[in-house]
Amino acid sequence: MKTLFCDKPLKYDGTQLRPHFIYQEFKILGDALVAFEGPADVALDHMVDLEDVEKKAPIYSPRMLHFLGEWFSDNFEWGILLQHHLVAEFYEILLESGVSSLSRRGNDVYFQDRKLNVSICTRSPVSVLVHVGINIETEGTPIPTSGLNELGVRPAVFAKQVLERFERDYNIWKTARVKVLPR
Amino acid sequence: MKTLFCDKPLKYDGTQLRPHFIYQEFKILGDALVAFEGPADVALDHMVDLEDVEKKAPIYSPRMLHFLGEWFSDNFEWGILLQHHLVAEFYEILLESGVSSLSRRGNDVYFQDRKLNVSICTRSPVSVLVHVGINIETEGTPIPTSGLNELGVRPAVFAKQVLERFERDYNIWKTARVKVLPR
Amino acid sequence: MKTLFCDKPLKYDGTQLRPHFIYQEFKILGDALVAFEGPADVALDHMVDLEDVEKKAPIYSPRMLHFLGEWFSDNFEWGILLQHHLVAEFYEILLESGVSSLSRRGNDVYFQDRKLNVSICTRSPVSVLVHVGINIETEGTPIPTSGLNELGVRPAVFAKQVLERFERDYNIWKTARVKVLPR
Amino acid sequence: MKTLFCDKPLKYDGTQLRPHFIYQEFKILGDALVAFEGPADVALDHMVDLEDVEKKAPIYSPRMLHFLGEWFSDNFEWGILLQHHLVAEFYEILLESGVSSLSRRGNDVYFQDRKLNVSICTRSPVSVLVHVGINIETEGTPIPTSGLNELGVRPAVFAKQVLERFERDYNIWKTARVKVLPR
Amino acid sequence: MKTLFCDKPLKYDGTQLRPHFIYQEFKILGDALVAFEGPADVALDHMVDLEDVEKKAPIYSPRMLHFLGEWFSDNFEWGILLQHHLVAEFYEILLESGVSSLSRRGNDVYFQDRKLNVSICTRSPVSVLVHVGINIETEGTPIPTSGLNELGVRPAVFAKQVLERFERDYNIWKTARVKVLPR
Amino acid sequence: MKTLFCDKPLKYDGTQLRPHFIYQEFKILGDALVAFEGPADVALDHMVDLEDVEKKAPIYSPRMLHFLGEWFSDNFEWGILLQHHLVAEFYEILLESGVSSLSRRGNDVYFQDRKLNVSICTRSPVSVLVHVGINIETEGTPIPTSGLNELGVRPAVFAKQVLERFERDYNIWKTARVKVLPR
Repeated sequence: MKTLFCDKPLKYDGTQLRPHFIYQEFKILGDALVAFEGPADVALDHMVDLEDVEKKAPIYSPRMLHFLGEWFSDNFEWGILLQHHLVAEFYEILLESGVSSLSRRGNDVYFQDRKLNVSICTRSPVSVLVHVGINIETEGTPIPTSGLNELGVRPAVFAKQVLERFERDYNIWKTARVKVLPR
Repeated sequence: MKTLFCDKPLKYDGTQLRPHFIYQEFKILGDALVAFEGPADVALDHMVDLEDVEKKAPIYSPRMLHFLGEWFSDNFEWGILLQHHLVAEFYEILLESGVSSLSRRGNDVYFQDRKLNVSICTRSPVSVLVHVGINIETEGTPIPTSGLNELGVRPAVFAKQVLERFERDYNIWKTARVKVLPR
Repeated sequence: MKTLFCDKPLKYDGTQLRPHFIYQEFKILGDALVAFEGPADVALDHMVDLEDVEKKAPIYSPRMLHFLGEWFSDNFEWGILLQHHLVAEFYEILLESGVSSLSRRGNDVYFQDRKLNVSICTRSPVSVLVHVGINIETEGTPIPTSGLNELGVRPAVFAKQVLERFERDYNIWKTARVKVLPR
Repeated sequence: MKTLFCDKPLKYDGTQLRPHFIYQEFKILGDALVAFEGPADVALDHMVDLEDVEKKAPIYSPRMLHFLGEWFSDNFEWGILLQHHLVAEFYEILLESGVSSLSRRGNDVYFQDRKLNVSICTRSPVSVLVHVGINIETEGTPIPTSGLNELGVRPAVFAKQVLERFERDYNIWKTARVKVLPR
Repeated sequence: MKTLFCDKPLKYDGTQLRPHFIYQEFKILGDALVAFEGPADVALDHMVDLEDVEKKAPIYSPRMLHFLGEWFSDNFEWGILLQHHLVAEFYEILLESGVSSLSRRGNDVYFQDRKLNVSICTRSPVSVLVHVGINIETEGTPIPTSGLNELGVRPAVFAKQVLERFERDYNIWKTARVKVLPR
Repeated sequence: MKTLFCDKPLKYDGTQLRPHFIYQEFKILGDALVAFEGPADVALDHMVDLEDVEKKAPIYSPRMLHFLGEWFSDNFEWGILLQHHLVAEFYEILLESGVSSLSRRGNDVYFQDRKLNVSICTRSPVSVLVHVGINIETEGTPIPTSGLNELGVRPAVFAKQVLERFERDYNIWKTARVKVLPR
């Protein structure tokens, strides 16, 4: 898989979570995880989490660090674990860097009980798609939130750490598939 | 899935990593993750990691906290991510509890550059199987290691934390599969 | 999986055979089989059986007992067998209760050579979907039909018997997957 | 798939439930369901149902009607439903023919609360395998049983009815896969 | 699978590459490969190859020999190899018949460095779909091309050779699945 | 995937067709296709083609060019097509180079109706495995055969052509999976 941090801001409105968007926007063909900054404004119409639709909980943030991944696999469960891992990994990096008052409940990370991120995994007819958005700024968010600015974390540096760690782990998983005797 | 901490010690020699062992030993039918303490002594003959076999690196520890999981799935990749998650989760719990000088490289966790754990995922004709062993004591290990005793972590309490968190996350993944619109 | 008999009537026009309808209508998340009564009126545009579309054979019944199932699986063949099983099961229950002059040809059950039911299985990007509709009343149906009223079978009682038996068998199949040695 | 009734008796000791046995014994290549008569004597060592092994419940019958099926599929769940369908189908045929005092609990059929059959589905590295054995005679069986002789059912005629109906339904399932619009 | 050469010309505009088109047009239910002649005119809107869309390279030919295949499988990779095989096979037949100055680069066959064909494989929710179009005439094609007329190959005869060989090989692959011991 | 021509001769007795042999012998981890020269002598006990076992047709050749491939996939059908492709490709190369009197029937290539090669695809619990052996010398073969020496083809040069072409096509298939819109 390939990873890319793109320093050109891009607004996330939910339509980016579609097959081949990464190819069309970033010219990367194949499994990829990209990161970029930009506002998030996802209307209910574009949301794929039906529990959130039911609760009428749209997504808004003035500025987020976005991670968008596409893997050309039919394995939805695998995509769900990649989503989880991406969240667990950025949480782990924050813990390692000494930020306190953090907690994780499933795929939601909190700072002082204020939510840091959103995330979702869905599938298309050709791929699994993952979006993780971490607040940078939080003005106007519909629920109590925190963001990377409040934590004193620089988004671009942090993004590259996450991408690098994800790719490193990803290669380990690929190797794990081919080096083990069956039972 | 079900989880169980068994306080009866059990030696791990590699033959436990087989289909239906959990049913035969613990009478749990179906997907399960169990934990128990005991020595680890896996001869090359019983090792499934071919890179370790190639390096002639057998596994020995006088006392480990063992996690043994079986999921009745044909999805090897999914098992590999469950293995990874189990490691990432116990690492995360140690970080949260304030242990310093920890690092993770893939599925290996280190304290002051000494290795805390082993882990593997393999498959059987009916399931994927995961073993994660975390040193409690370290006397006589073939490489520089650390253990839960040195970290001041009580194995049984820690085991239950890990099992509980894994099960909680597992249920979230199951729900994620059924509540999302496709793209 | 969960089962539910809903005593509020609901018209079936074919659009109910879509992913997450059961969640949206009945608030059940995950694998489920629900039953309800109501008319059936499926125009050719909403039919998914291409042989019926080719024959221009729309579905109409003034009142049916409907079973609607969704399983979040990619296994289309499995859904087809669940459809078959649901039909075979309601046929079996009628046989056991002593109704005579019944016969089954594939997924169609007949009373005195008049058709009792329709059924279909299709797939969505996230699930397999099953509909089985059994006539209660038959006035105005486009082909010779019989219905539960003519058989003297009370729909709600019958529906609950079918749901209960299906769920019981379903759990047996789930156990069968995890308790058998491979060959 | 092909079906065959072989009128040469054959003892079933559990080792027949293996990949390619049907090819080796009956020269049928590919998906097949065969039936034959013969004693059944399966020692615990050759049993694949771990719950029965746990209960130390070996299989014995002086004379059974055996159905042995192999489908070259990786879809274990599908095999489990084929096993179920084979049982449900022979039960249905008995009900249709007017035998009373019959009941079915999962994959076990009873006459006056005495067990008529055994059944199992397992998988091999290349296929799913199904065995259904219906008692003809019952002398010496380890539990209370009934058999086709007591029911006044002629095994060879009955076997052919079951094979014919199974094959007819099987072809319907194959067609169902290719004639339906997705949702 | 079934094969058919249809001698009624049919224009290919890309919309034929859809599930069940072969059933709707040719009344063949199930896995099938059909061939027919006709112009090709695929606007960018109907193209599925994103690299070609990116290059703005639409498909046009005044007359092509078209092969259109549908297999009701979820195995996209398998469809891709069937596409490849169909191309390799027509190339092989041309080589065997003594045509010189031919070469193959992936799924493109060239005569004197002018392109003979287009091909694609995509998937639908129920099937994999393959189109291979071989130029018969070449007037007005957007790139340098050759065609069967220039090679002195009669399209109908050639089409039947390709269909026959493909079907023969297909049956061999089906047998290969069921006659081999696992390792 | 990786390819390798090894100029050290190696005898092929059928036991090489096992998971991880390529890693153990050639230190290549992951999907790979290797080629080497050496005698072939496969006793019935080590043969996996049951039709050949039935016919008691062991494999012997004093010197063959062997291709041995392993792909860590659960997709048996895909392996079967890779086997076919490997054969079709070496046949294609011979045709291109102007060798006459060649023909292909399924996975067998003939020169003047004498057989040039054997081939098989099987699966292991972790992979699909392919062997293609092309005679170099033919003295003592149990059936009429031809070999590369008779054709005037130099094995090492030819092996490298085949490996290079296979790898090039393989990469095209990988790209095909990720660049196509679904239908």
